[in-house]
This record gives sequence, structure tokens and C-alpha cells, in this order.
Amino acid sequence: MQTVSKTLDTAVAKQLVDEYIKSFFQYRSAEAMELGPSYVRLWQSIEKLVLAGGKRLRPFMLLATYQAYNPEGTLNDILPAAVAHELIHSAMLIHDDIIDRDSVRYGVKNVSGQYEDHYSQFFDDKAELAHMSLSAALLAGDALIADAHMLVRKINRPAELVDQAEAILNKEIFEVIGGELLDVEVAFLPKDSINLDTIAKYKTASYSFVGPLTTGAMLAQAPENDINILKELSVVIGIGYQLRDDLIGVFGNPTTTGKSNASDIREGKRTYLIEKFEQLATPEQSEGLFSIFRRSDASEEELAKVRELLTITGARAAVEGLIEEKRASGVEKVNSLSLSDEAKKLYLDLIAQSLNREM
Amino acid sequence: MQTVSKTLDTAVAKQLVDEYIKSFFQYRSAEAMELGPSYVRLWQSIEKLVLAGGKRLRPFMLLATYQAYNPEGTLNDILPAAVAHELIHSAMLIHDDIIDRDSVRYGVKNVSGQYEDHYSQFFDDKAELAHMSLSAALLAGDALIADAHMLVRKINRPAELVDQAEAILNKEIFEVIGGELLDVEVAFLPKDSINLDTIAKYKTASYSFVGPLTTGAMLAQAPENDINILKELSVVIGIGYQLRDDLIGVFGNPTTTGKSNASDIREGKRTYLIEKFEQLATPEQSEGLFSIFRRSDASEEELAKVRELLTITGARAAVEGLIEEKRASGVEKVNSLSLSDEAKKLYLDLIAQSLNREM
Repeated sequence: MQTVSKTLDTAVAKQLVDEYIKSFFQYRSAEAMELGPSYVRLWQSIEKLVLAGGKRLRPFMLLATYQAYNPEGTLNDILPAAVAHELIHSAMLIHDDIIDRDSVRYGVKNVSGQYEDHYSQFFDDKAELAHMSLSAALLAGDALIADAHMLVRKINRPAELVDQAEAILNKEIFEVIGGELLDVEVAFLPKDSINLDTIAKYKTASYSFVGPLTTGAMLAQAPENDINILKELSVVIGIGYQLRDDLIGVFGNPTTTGKSNASDIREGKRTYLIEKFEQLATPEQSEGLFSIFRRSDASEEELAKVRELLTITGARAAVEGLIEEKRASGVEKVNSLSLSDEAKKLYLDLIAQSLNREM
Repeated sequence: MQTVSKTLDTAVAKQLVDEYIKSFFQYRSAEAMELGPSYVRLWQSIEKLVLAGGKRLRPFMLLATYQAYNPEGTLNDILPAAVAHELIHSAMLIHDDIIDRDSVRYGVKNVSGQYEDHYSQFFDDKAELAHMSLSAALLAGDALIADAHMLVRKINRPAELVDQAEAILNKEIFEVIGGELLDVEVAFLPKDSINLDTIAKYKTASYSFVGPLTTGAMLAQAPENDINILKELSVVIGIGYQLRDDLIGVFGNPTTTGKSNASDIREGKRTYLIEKFEQLATPEQSEGLFSIFRRSDASEEELAKVRELLTITGARAAVEGLIEEKRASGVEKVNSLSLSDEAKKLYLDLIAQSLNREM
């Protein structure tokens, strides 16, 4: 039974987190009622979205890291920090969907999608309807950014640790906002002005990995050296995650991955894969790909042609190689943590999940 | 010289606040440089906007209230709380401008306006350009909401007071978001579903008056009874401010007020003035007004006709009467504060400024 005491069960963590999330939304809906049913609706639409996304990876990693460094600690003491990370994640998705003009997330309508349904009775003009729905989603994300800060204050740990947790959260938000901006701009700014590693580090790694891992470790008063290693590990995982995501976006099976394997090509998304291709392709191969790339009407046959070019030039293999490098570097970092082999498994699993996702 | 020691000079307050704001943006721009010049540009565009708006009413009221209740206190101790309120104000304006599709604020281009200039070289499609600029402004507002929380933590007062200041800030944000949502929806939702007092209370009073006044008083450890009176006073001022704003939006001189006296009519904005008109007008007068109202092409002559109808029905006088009621109620509340007459003048001035603005 030794295993059970040291490794946090994902289902147990999910239940803890989901219960806290539900009570948070209950509280907010009750408060919103003071302003009237319109505001309650906004909170209910956020709740619907948040409950549809169920993996709770960020809260889990935060709680599990806390437990790894403080096995005697009580998870409930730091649960609000875990939920704060889920709220920031939701806020970023809601605002990211505004930027990307998406109305579906986790297979359900996101906040603006739900508002399009609700507001449709008041508007004939589609553009006007879209703008009003987007406005509601904008406000929804704002509310979550504020409340994530408030939740962190509810951590039951010494005051200076709570202050640090809020400082880390604030840094993550600052970084993810910058990463998101770069991700928007990379589509149209001059090619050399934005580095893909910078986007992966700040848009993906920062609040998804660095924040949860270092917050959990810091709240458990883990050794400074371990916190630094976890920070480096998080960046490696974040970049590896993004590399894998780029492959999935082109070569993945949509039924398995839940992600289109056509839109990255049709939108002409600049990825590591395309960067590698540009380095490796002959002028003829390059012309072949870019005559199809960024054409929203690219046919299935043309998409297959792009995939073939990305494969025969060695671009795909090069990205696979980079992922393997990140994996090896990550494993090395995990091995230098001052944890038991059993506890290290948590991070080895995270590497495997993030870098070798089924595609 | 007694006066000088007890009443905060607006110019002194403004200088303190502006210096702190500048050093804050300097710090953020330096941090942003780690992500690259794109992110620095976002922070510079926010700074440009914030520095263009110069009244600093919210910080001033917070600092002056602190000084009224703690004349021996050091303003620098609580300056970050004052600046936090200015940042929330800016965040709300930036996001409000997205919702209203405005690109100018304080006579300068707002964040999305500045980005339209910057991004114009990359887009031929106007709608695409507008969407990308709006995306940058969305992220700018997000960053300020997060940083307002961070600034509040820098207050140099006992920890429980700092916690309370952050809780008040969070409540204001929760309320202004709800108020903003209602303000969006009042334009198209069924007439009886949203109350104008609720909008004025939550959209205007909460973060502009309640937050600054109660934060200043709480940090000065003012008597509980005074804090409650300040809260009530703030709501009265907020509603009175909105009533005056409605009159300015129709009868004001744009050169004096800086605000159009045509767009409220052309947009068909539902205001206290229109509500009063509906109560007072004959069917014929009502038809006269609503044949013009909400027509973006309403001529100067037609606008004059609307103004005449609002006047002869007594709607304008009724709103003036309501403002006078709010003024009297506000003065009564001020007189019940446990402050010297000299200190009370601060709030009497605030009432006068907010309710009797030149038009």
C-alpha cells in the first residue's frame, strides 16, 4: 500500500478539484443574482464550459507535486491554488476562442457559442450577433482572471508562501498573455521577428507546466534546486508538447486526437514542422508545398501531397528527432530531482503523456 | 496652514500617481523584453493610453480618503492601491472600447486604435485588421486586470488590511463586469428585465466610487459606521453621475463636455431620461420621439425636435429633479461622517463635480 500513500490518484484529484469548482460557481452564481438573472447566466455559461473540460491536468500536477514534496501535507490546504490554475486556463481558452473566432470547445459550445444561441432571438444581423456574443465571452474571461487571484489567497499555508503563489500566478498570466500575442502575430509578422521556442515557452509551458509544478513545489517548501529543475523541465515539456501538437495537426488521426489534420495546412500555420521543411526542401519541393499551403480550399489530395512532401524531405523525422531530444533531456532532469523513484514516475508519466500523445 | 496638512492637493496626488504609473510601465516593458519587442509594444501602447487620461479621480479619492481618516499616515504606503484602481479603470475602458468598437479615448488612439495603425501594413482586409487589433487590446486589458491584483499586494499596511484591500478590489471587478454585461444587454433585452439603477450602481458606482472610498477608509482603519456611509454615498454619487451623463449625452455642448450630444439619440440608448419621457409623454409625443430615436441618420433638425420633446414633456426637469434628490441625499450622508468640516469638503466637492458637471 506504500504506492497509494505517495502517488496521487488522478481520479481522486479530479474529484477534489471538481467539487471545489462546483462550489465556487455556486457561490458566484448566488452573488451574481444580486445584479440579476443576466449575470447569473454568464456564470452558468462559464460553469458549463469549465465542467465540460475534464482532465484537470494543471490542478493535478500542482497537487501531485505538493504531495511528492510534502507527503504528510493536506491537499485541501492548497486546493484553491490548483483550482486557480484551472480558472486561468479557462480564461485563456475563452479569450483565445474570441481571437480564433471559435464557438466550440471540449465538444460543447463555449461562452460565445452559448451566447450566440441566447442572443439570436434579438438579432437578425449575424455580424452584430457575433459581436455581442463575443462581448459576453470577453467579460467572462475577465471575471476568471480576477477570481484566480482571489482563490490563491485562500491557500491555507504560511502568508509568505501564499504571497509567493500569487506572484507566480501573476507571472504566468503576464507570460501567457505575451505568448498569446506572439502566437497571433507569428501568422503575419516578418518571419524572423518571432521565435517558435519563445511562443512555446510562454504560451504553453508557462501556465500549463511551470506554474503548476513550481507552485506545488514552493508550497511544499521543496529544495530550491528542485524548484529550478522543475522550471527547466516544464519548459522542455512545453516545447516538446508543442512539437507533438504540430505533428498531430498534420499527421494525426482526427478521431483519435480530436483535432483536425487539415486546418493547420489550410490556415498556413507557421510551425516547427514547416520551419524544418523550409530548411530541408529543394526549391521544387518548396514550390510544391507552398502552392497548396494557406489555401482554405486545399483538397484532400492536395493535403496528402503536403504530408508526403513533409515526410520525404525528412521534416517530419526531424521534428520526431527534436521531440526525442526533449524527452531525453526531460528524463535527465527528472532523474536529478531529490525524489524517490516512485515520485519521479509522476514526471516521467507527464513527459510521456505530453510528448508521445497518441496520434 | 492647517488646511494644507489635512486636505490632499489634487496636483500633488496626480504627480505621486503618475510617477508610480510610469515606474510600473518601465518595469513591465523591461520584463516584456524577455519575450521580445512585440510584447514591449503592447505595454507601450497601454502606457500611452493610460498617460493620456490624466484626471486620476479614483486614485485621488482613495488617497484623500486615507488622509482624511489617517492624517499622520504616509501616502506612499498605500499608493499601489491607488494605482491599482487606475489600472482597473484602464482595463475596463480598453475592454469597453472593444465592445463599443471605439478606437479613440482621451483624444488619443486607444490600444486597438494604435494596433490598427501598426498592423495595417500586414492586412488589406479591413475586417481582419480590426479583428487582429481588437485581439491585441483584449490581451492588454487582461494584463491590467492581473496586475491590479499584484499592485494591491504592495501596500505597506498590516497583512489583514492588504488582504481586505484585495478582496474589495476583487468585488469591484466582479461587480463592474456584471454592470458592463447589463449595460450591453439593456440595448436589446426586454425593457423590464434590466433596471437602470442596477447598471449605474454596478457599472459606475462600484469601481469608481465605492472601491476607492472604502479602500482608502479601510486602510486608514476608519470607523465601521463611516465606511458604511461612504459606501452608501458612493452609490448615490454613482447614480447621480449617470443621470447627469444622460443629460449631457443629449443636451450637453460637445465642446464643453467632450462628448457627442447626438449619438445617444442616434444609437437609441436607453437612459433615465428616456424612461422618464415614456412615463410622461402623450401617445403623440411618444410617436414623435420614437420616429427619430435609434435612427443613425437622424438630422440636426430631428435631434432638435427630440430635445424639445424631452423638455416640454418635463422629462428633462424630472431628471434634474432626481439629480437634486441625489445631491441632497449625498450631502446628508457626508454630514453624518465623523470628520471635520474641512475633511467633509472633499466629499461635498466630489458630489458637486459628479452631479453638476458643466454641460
